[in-house]
Amino acid sequence: MKDSVLILSGGMDSVTLLYDEHERIALAISFDYGSNHNGKEIPFAQLHCKRLGIPHVIIPLDFMGKYFKSSLLEGADAIPEGHYDDDNMKSTVVPFRNGIMLSIAVGVAESHSLAYVMMANHGGDHTIYPDCRPEFVEAFDAAAKAGTFVGVRLRSPYTNMTKADIARRGKELGIDYSETWSCYKGTEHHCGKCGTCVERREALAEAGIEDTTVYDD
Amino acid sequence: MKDSVLILSGGMDSVTLLYDEHERIALAISFDYGSNHNGKEIPFAQLHCKRLGIPHVIIPLDFMGKYFKSSLLEGADAIPEGHYDDDNMKSTVVPFRNGIMLSIAVGVAESHSLAYVMMANHGGDHTIYPDCRPEFVEAFDAAAKAGTFVGVRLRSPYTNMTKADIARRGKELGIDYSETWSCYKGTEHHCGKCGTCVERREALAEAGIEDTTVYDD
Repeated sequence: MKDSVLILSGGMDSVTLLYDEHERIALAISFDYGSNHNGKEIPFAQLHCKRLGIPHVIIPLDFMGKYFKSSLLEGADAIPEGHYDDDNMKSTVVPFRNGIMLSIAVGVAESHSLAYVMMANHGGDHTIYPDCRPEFVEAFDAAAKAGTFVGVRLRSPYTNMTKADIARRGKELGIDYSETWSCYKGTEHHCGKCGTCVERREALAEAGIEDTTVYDD
Repeated sequence: MKDSVLILSGGMDSVTLLYDEHERIALAISFDYGSNHNGKEIPFAQLHCKRLGIPHVIIPLDFMGKYFKSSLLEGADAIPEGHYDDDNMKSTVVPFRNGIMLSIAVGVAESHSLAYVMMANHGGDHTIYPDCRPEFVEAFDAAAKAGTFVGVRLRSPYTNMTKADIARRGKELGIDYSETWSCYKGTEHHCGKCGTCVERREALAEAGIEDTTVYDD
């Protein structure tokens, strides 16, 4: 039964969730907030939706570049290198990004009488992203339920999984992760050094998946 | 102390809140979701911010016209006439509109280290708008707090007031309500017949304010 809207970036996590739950996904939404890496990841979102026959739309969020502060919105040179847990990676946080994407997805779900919005946040995000943590997810779920006629609910089945757990699930599903994008720099190839690249490499290694990603380093 | 972002439509309620709390408002945001009446109310939002010296930005939400279902997004002829409580007024609900506007305002607040987002929802909205009710407001407040570094909080001081209560407050503040817009049809003058016009007339009468609005009927 098609009852869900999925927020799909084109990265490893949301692409895995797309395959994992494709029978329930009525619509996938990618948000383009004008970062370099949006231009690299959204084509992968399109590719997988086309392959699975799932309707896909891209919603631009131009206001973020204008009124929001984040190194992610300032181009490749502004992206720090190092491990995801490091304090400098905090500069890549786009303030309340998940709240904004979820709210729009809830409005779209309510417009089409769909009961669920799905998001692929996971345990590894908790350290630096406050809007990926279980307490945010629970409160937002309550807000979506209270704020809609159909009582839209939030499903985020990977909230307490690691990225390596997700990669293992993707391996079972036969996903080719070279058809996903992680690097925040968003240049031709993955840089291999920024927090998202380091995290990607570690997760694939830990899941025992051969990493065929082309890295710059 | 300037510590708040206000969501300002240019209608009676949010204009009253603007004057009521102007010493705390660092920034007012109007959202243009492409309805006819946005074009009539936003100039009033601009006027009052200019008068009070409060920075004001307009954020377009073009995706709503494309992916959302609401008679409010379909032009003047689609707006039903009658009392606000009537079932047909439900067609004017823009799904999860407050959730979306609040989320963006929370992101802007976090970007500028502001502690509060303010919204002028009130008791009269509860009947038809699920995202104006106290249970939504409480849950969203918890989501904003959990989902941001600064712990942004939601302030909606009119949640349990009636529109007539707000008009009484505006009378004390010396607000000229002919410099606000309500009518959902958004044609040259207020139509006088749609739910928002009926509600406006009743609130002004109940508050003992001479209604100098030009109505078509």
